[in-house]
Amino acid sequence: MTTTSIPATVGTDLQDTLVELTDLHLQAKQLHWNVKGRHFRNVHLHLDELTSIAREAADTVAERAVTIGFPPDARAMTVAKNSPLPDAVEGRITDAAAVDHVVALLTVITDRLRERIVRIADMDPVSQDMLIGVATDLEKQLWMFSAQQG
Amino acid sequence: MTTTSIPATVGTDLQDTLVELTDLHLQAKQLHWNVKGRHFRNVHLHLDELTSIAREAADTVAERAVTIGFPPDARAMTVAKNSPLPDAVEGRITDAAAVDHVVALLTVITDRLRERIVRIADMDPVSQDMLIGVATDLEKQLWMFSAQQG
Amino acid sequence: MTTTSIPATVGTDLQDTLVELTDLHLQAKQLHWNVKGRHFRNVHLHLDELTSIAREAADTVAERAVTIGFPPDARAMTVAKNSPLPDAVEGRITDAAAVDHVVALLTVITDRLRERIVRIADMDPVSQDMLIGVATDLEKQLWMFSAQQG
Amino acid sequence: MTTTSIPATVGTDLQDTLVELTDLHLQAKQLHWNVKGRHFRNVHLHLDELTSIAREAADTVAERAVTIGFPPDARAMTVAKNSPLPDAVEGRITDAAAVDHVVALLTVITDRLRERIVRIADMDPVSQDMLIGVATDLEKQLWMFSAQQG
Amino acid sequence: MTTTSIPATVGTDLQDTLVELTDLHLQAKQLHWNVKGRHFRNVHLHLDELTSIAREAADTVAERAVTIGFPPDARAMTVAKNSPLPDAVEGRITDAAAVDHVVALLTVITDRLRERIVRIADMDPVSQDMLIGVATDLEKQLWMFSAQQG
Amino acid sequence: MTTTSIPATVGTDLQDTLVELTDLHLQAKQLHWNVKGRHFRNVHLHLDELTSIAREAADTVAERAVTIGFPPDARAMTVAKNSPLPDAVEGRITDAAAVDHVVALLTVITDRLRERIVRIADMDPVSQDMLIGVATDLEKQLWMFSAQQG
Amino acid sequence: MTTTSIPATVGTDLQDTLVELTDLHLQAKQLHWNVKGRHFRNVHLHLDELTSIAREAADTVAERAVTIGFPPDARAMTVAKNSPLPDAVEGRITDAAAVDHVVALLTVITDRLRERIVRIADMDPVSQDMLIGVATDLEKQLWMFSAQQG
Amino acid sequence: MTTTSIPATVGTDLQDTLVELTDLHLQAKQLHWNVKGRHFRNVHLHLDELTSIAREAADTVAERAVTIGFPPDARAMTVAKNSPLPDAVEGRITDAAAVDHVVALLTVITDRLRERIVRIADMDPVSQDMLIGVATDLEKQLWMFSAQQG
Amino acid sequence: MTTTSIPATVGTDLQDTLVELTDLHLQAKQLHWNVKGRHFRNVHLHLDELTSIAREAADTVAERAVTIGFPPDARAMTVAKNSPLPDAVEGRITDAAAVDHVVALLTVITDRLRERIVRIADMDPVSQDMLIGVATDLEKQLWMFSAQQG
Amino acid sequence: MTTTSIPATVGTDLQDTLVELTDLHLQAKQLHWNVKGRHFRNVHLHLDELTSIAREAADTVAERAVTIGFPPDARAMTVAKNSPLPDAVEGRITDAAAVDHVVALLTVITDRLRERIVRIADMDPVSQDMLIGVATDLEKQLWMFSAQQG
Amino acid sequence: MTTTSIPATVGTDLQDTLVELTDLHLQAKQLHWNVKGRHFRNVHLHLDELTSIAREAADTVAERAVTIGFPPDARAMTVAKNSPLPDAVEGRITDAAAVDHVVALLTVITDRLRERIVRIADMDPVSQDMLIGVATDLEKQLWMFSAQQG
Amino acid sequence: MTTTSIPATVGTDLQDTLVELTDLHLQAKQLHWNVKGRHFRNVHLHLDELTSIAREAADTVAERAVTIGFPPDARAMTVAKNSPLPDAVEGRITDAAAVDHVVALLTVITDRLRERIVRIADMDPVSQDMLIGVATDLEKQLWMFSAQQG
Repeated sequence: MTTTSIPATVGTDLQDTLVELTDLHLQAKQLHWNVKGRHFRNVHLHLDELTSIAREAADTVAERAVTIGFPPDARAMTVAKNSPLPDAVEGRITDAAAVDHVVALLTVITDRLRERIVRIADMDPVSQDMLIGVATDLEKQLWMFSAQQG
Repeated sequence: MTTTSIPATVGTDLQDTLVELTDLHLQAKQLHWNVKGRHFRNVHLHLDELTSIAREAADTVAERAVTIGFPPDARAMTVAKNSPLPDAVEGRITDAAAVDHVVALLTVITDRLRERIVRIADMDPVSQDMLIGVATDLEKQLWMFSAQQG
Repeated sequence: MTTTSIPATVGTDLQDTLVELTDLHLQAKQLHWNVKGRHFRNVHLHLDELTSIAREAADTVAERAVTIGFPPDARAMTVAKNSPLPDAVEGRITDAAAVDHVVALLTVITDRLRERIVRIADMDPVSQDMLIGVATDLEKQLWMFSAQQG
Repeated sequence: MTTTSIPATVGTDLQDTLVELTDLHLQAKQLHWNVKGRHFRNVHLHLDELTSIAREAADTVAERAVTIGFPPDARAMTVAKNSPLPDAVEGRITDAAAVDHVVALLTVITDRLRERIVRIADMDPVSQDMLIGVATDLEKQLWMFSAQQG
Repeated sequence: MTTTSIPATVGTDLQDTLVELTDLHLQAKQLHWNVKGRHFRNVHLHLDELTSIAREAADTVAERAVTIGFPPDARAMTVAKNSPLPDAVEGRITDAAAVDHVVALLTVITDRLRERIVRIADMDPVSQDMLIGVATDLEKQLWMFSAQQG
Repeated sequence: MTTTSIPATVGTDLQDTLVELTDLHLQAKQLHWNVKGRHFRNVHLHLDELTSIAREAADTVAERAVTIGFPPDARAMTVAKNSPLPDAVEGRITDAAAVDHVVALLTVITDRLRERIVRIADMDPVSQDMLIGVATDLEKQLWMFSAQQG
Repeated sequence: MTTTSIPATVGTDLQDTLVELTDLHLQAKQLHWNVKGRHFRNVHLHLDELTSIAREAADTVAERAVTIGFPPDARAMTVAKNSPLPDAVEGRITDAAAVDHVVALLTVITDRLRERIVRIADMDPVSQDMLIGVATDLEKQLWMFSAQQG
Repeated sequence: MTTTSIPATVGTDLQDTLVELTDLHLQAKQLHWNVKGRHFRNVHLHLDELTSIAREAADTVAERAVTIGFPPDARAMTVAKNSPLPDAVEGRITDAAAVDHVVALLTVITDRLRERIVRIADMDPVSQDMLIGVATDLEKQLWMFSAQQG
Repeated sequence: MTTTSIPATVGTDLQDTLVELTDLHLQAKQLHWNVKGRHFRNVHLHLDELTSIAREAADTVAERAVTIGFPPDARAMTVAKNSPLPDAVEGRITDAAAVDHVVALLTVITDRLRERIVRIADMDPVSQDMLIGVATDLEKQLWMFSAQQG
Repeated sequence: MTTTSIPATVGTDLQDTLVELTDLHLQAKQLHWNVKGRHFRNVHLHLDELTSIAREAADTVAERAVTIGFPPDARAMTVAKNSPLPDAVEGRITDAAAVDHVVALLTVITDRLRERIVRIADMDPVSQDMLIGVATDLEKQLWMFSAQQG
Repeated sequence: MTTTSIPATVGTDLQDTLVELTDLHLQAKQLHWNVKGRHFRNVHLHLDELTSIAREAADTVAERAVTIGFPPDARAMTVAKNSPLPDAVEGRITDAAAVDHVVALLTVITDRLRERIVRIADMDPVSQDMLIGVATDLEKQLWMFSAQQG
Repeated sequence: MTTTSIPATVGTDLQDTLVELTDLHLQAKQLHWNVKGRHFRNVHLHLDELTSIAREAADTVAERAVTIGFPPDARAMTVAKNSPLPDAVEGRITDAAAVDHVVALLTVITDRLRERIVRIADMDPVSQDMLIGVATDLEKQLWMFSAQQG
């Protein structure tokens, strides 16, 4: 039983997760710069934490993919074409709208993560445990951003 | 004399720089994961340093753009469409090819940076000083990667 | 598949764990202050580590509960009414008796944790993974305190 | 003149303070988890600082009590029965309501602390100095939470 | 070519900057203490960061002045008489009014800094580079406080 | 018994202390920049420590004032008008003269502090304890600067 | 349900893992000292990281074994007799041969770990989670050493 | 009201405290080296903490003495002649005897400290506050060593 | 005079020391996991310090061996065959027995080290100085473990 | 526009600066060891700071030279032959003479730096910015050493 | 060959060194508090460094003594009776006199240390190496204090 | 027996060592900047570690020289004239040639160091121990660079 015998669907799930996490950290920075409103500072700082979480998770997932034999791809065009996330609006954005958008982003990602966690459980427990770790962090962020929706 | 009177071309130059730096940190990570060869570890670690430099520079430049009234845009599609950088190949890549590709990326960016530094000198010395700082770091990396070309 | 579709029993298990962990950190501090005997310093310091572990675990579990839609409750009266843990004696306590009491506390908690880990496995792998992490730490403490029973 | 000749009322005052501080840190955490609203992040973080202050103060006061010969008691039932603090509501709570509740908690504790500081001044200057230190921190928090009441 | 041949106007520009930066850090602290409102904590913390930036910049500028032969002067009376900044109101102030006042202060200072940066460019590139550094930081703060104006 | 029942004279004493501490840190920096002589480096560094002590003490005292209901005021004009401290000379100053001036400043402040400590003892033990802390630090500095007078 | 009811096979699996991890850290050090070649420094440093990972994993696994009632054994003779790993050659070794040997070691260990992870899943989820953590780290190292095989 | 008007008795009390604290840190080290018995390591480490506390307290008290005009004296002969503390036995000592001796030392010092705290309250509140701080730490140590007496 | 002219006996002495130190750190960990008794925590922690000391010393000695041209060998079988140390018992061990065993181990190693220090003094002062450093640390540990023998 | 099109005079200016900075850090250490006099400690410590500044600046300048295609040369003979700095006297030197010598060294270097900053402004703004940074630090040191000339 | 066979003269030499080092750190602190003069701050800080060096050396030497079977003795009376060092004068002392006294102290100690280093070389190389380490530090201090004698 | 009675040959040996170490750190930096080739990064980083080791050793040796009465001399011309080391080539250098040159440098220095260690053993054990420390570090580097020669 070796890492090379892991089914390709695990690699696909990791690649899809990588695309979503990359889009997430690019969008989190995008909002971090363009947000405005009375809550600017709180949302601005919070988005930087989310960026760090997403970047670290993307790195972990990508390195797992190459470990099991699937070269990861997080180039701009790949992300632009394949990400299922709703896109951030262009230009400045109010703090409330930024929070709403992050909630939307995290809802999509965590839903898809939970499906993958079930799907790959028996195929590769190591990758599953890694995705559980990512879901743990993102679902916590989902709570924290949702809690700001008033 | 206020930041609001700065010519739009400065904003454009910052936005273009942001796109290039974002593409750079995405590609640096892409190579970081996919590189292989006898020099794997050195190139792998070096690419992580380059990623950090590019990410920090992108953040600095984007915040300057919004400071002078130009909302920055580094979303995946914007980067995919507008970046002038050659794209990394898909999949695994040898260490020598990775180094060659980084040299190509940095050559394009530093050449364009030097032109912008001259162009905006009289329009906004603060932005100019910032781009000089970015060029200082990237030209040093260009030397260090070129020195590995044998 | 969303966090809002997680069965209520997961929330109940997290809430019950929170009550036990809160009682644990309150009792660990209680013993930390009241212990005496030749082994005072060792037990006193060890109990402070246990307090930290229990407090951090309680925080993690409570935040997971609210994340999946179940408001946690660790107020004094809630803990006093609902905790299944044996209560510490009033006043000063010998080092040997303190160690025995901690072993009793940890035995109750880890037994219940192991049942919950099995019960919620299919309902919410994220919460399960979190409880496994808590059990890992507390079972290790159980070994370390038991080892002192001579 | 020894620590063993300190009047029992000092021990009682320390014990009462311990009960209040323990209730405070349990309630601060309770609100930390259940708060929601536009100001969620600020209040959530602020409550964690308050929890740390209350926990450290409780530890200091309890160790002083045992030092002068009065075994401290901060078990859940003792706190539930004896705390004079108003109880936090069950479940989620708005940020404004959470701030109001903290102001109410701190008002009760600081008023009682100031009375004890006067009462034990001549009986035990060491304990008095300790309670002055606790009051210094909690009255500062009272200002900071009150300042958020608009 | 020596530092002693630098025109007196550079010294004057540094001295004027020093007065403004000193007034800025005194007023930032003044608001830090007196602010109130729902956004108290965020504005309170943000003002402390501004105080640190202004104090460090004042120190740098004053040491540059003495380096080129102009003894700096930032005594209370000198600042009170010569500062061009609008004065903070006496007593408590709402969070919105505090933010507005900081925006007004930073607008005055950054406008004057940009004029000086142009004026002394050929006289003393070292002092110019220093003022560019100060402007970089303060213009960034101007963006961040403006972004909170709703 | 609440913080709101503290006599106004305590607020006045805190405000007067704040003015003196602010003048002290402005003058300490003034000397830090303008001092010269064989002992330049020692006095220059020592004055920076004094600046830090005075700034931290000013912040503590100002926050206590607002805590007990008296809005603090440390604006440049307020300090310039109300400070009882002798003013530093304009321009460069010898190391010996700088030391003498600091001794004069600290003598005035510590004398006034000791009077206030006695006066407010029964009115507000928390504020008294705070002023004792400030006096502890400044009297130690007074010794250290006096010891340099030869 | 208690830790004492865990099947003996879990203890055996932990003990076998401990033997392999101990052999791994001894061999990693062996190569760390004896490696030579143009890539000496990279391989030398990389082997030290592998040693640390293996030592920490061995400690974690051994403490888990004793926690569930199976005294761990990692004495030299036990390791020498029972380890399934191929042995390092005696004396100096080229960098390429060292990398090949590490790949061989990690292939054996990770294959066996993956079997154990499946086998003990239902017997002891805590031990399983621990072995998944070990596999996560070692499979990542397997990728990184393999990537150096050219 | 100046530090120079403080009654000589305060200086005497500080000097006496200094002698006792110096004897304490010399004896704590003496026991730290010579202790033996099953509890060696705990007592050995605990005595090092006591040494640090006594040394820091001695430094604080001595600097206060010189600050109020009384040159401190902690030379070996002065300590040997004037210390009221019982002397440690020569040579190796059992852990139980070492703990008993520390309890005896701390009982003498804390009793004397409490008398001084009352005596100098009105003469010099700064020195009083300092001695209260020393008593706080030493009485806590007295509890911790007493608790080891079985 | 070069490192290559150092007599082979120095290499042999370093190799023998390496074997002993490796056996020591394996056995120290073995006891660290299997110890039990009232003094568990102290002995458990102390053994971890001993492990670190032995591992660091082993690394230093092995690197010295290769430096002077003798490839070191600390593979499990080499250690198992060649170590002169008495072997730890299998399974759990009481704290007193563990301490006795460590004293036995350290007595053997330090006796042999002292002989080597004399033997190689004139052959290689650098290696001698290194062994003196190892002996310094181990003889100190010998004292500390012996002191616990009651 | 590339780094390879930068005029050779920039390379020459960087090389000349490197020679001066290397001579400066060698001489600063020379004085650091040989200084004597009542101000020994201050001058000794100050010279170590100057050494660090000069070494870091030399490294930065040398790496810039190679970056733009001019191999730097700071070998002892190159420095000995080409440095325009006055040489330190042989043997011990008084503190006053050491300060005078440093002032002479820094005067030569900063004068030459200011000329280069003007000369290369249009040829290579990146190198210019770097030399401005070096001048900023060295002119500050020139002030600080001059201030000690009495 | 064991530590128990080391000649008694080594123990005597360590004990004598301990007495001198203890006297040294007591006197260094004594001067640290009582020094005055234009160089106060430098000498005051330097003496604190000397205190730390002497205290750490005393601890090392004392632990070596007990390691080889000679219980160390650094009680006040032992030091007062046996120290060969000249005693510090009572009361305040000028900076120049303090430096002279330290030079005298260090001259006595280092002379005696050098004799012991020769005497015990063949008896106990470990103790010798330790005394060489102490001499290295103290002779360096002797140079640094002598250099201040003008 | 004093440091002033140490034979002049010890001073000469320290001075010669200082010259060699200074040449070493200048050449190590020279190679650090000019190296190129596939192994650039590893050799570049390794040379920086060597520079730090050589600089720290030079400082230690120079301070020892002045301590025993021989003023050290590491000025550029002194090093250029007196260093026995082969000189680095001018301009860029391949990684293999750089490694070969470092091996040549370290071979010369360590050979000479070993002779001095024997020669001064009886004259000054403190200086000898210091040179042994330098040799320990440089011989280890010699191994590490030699190991890269393929």
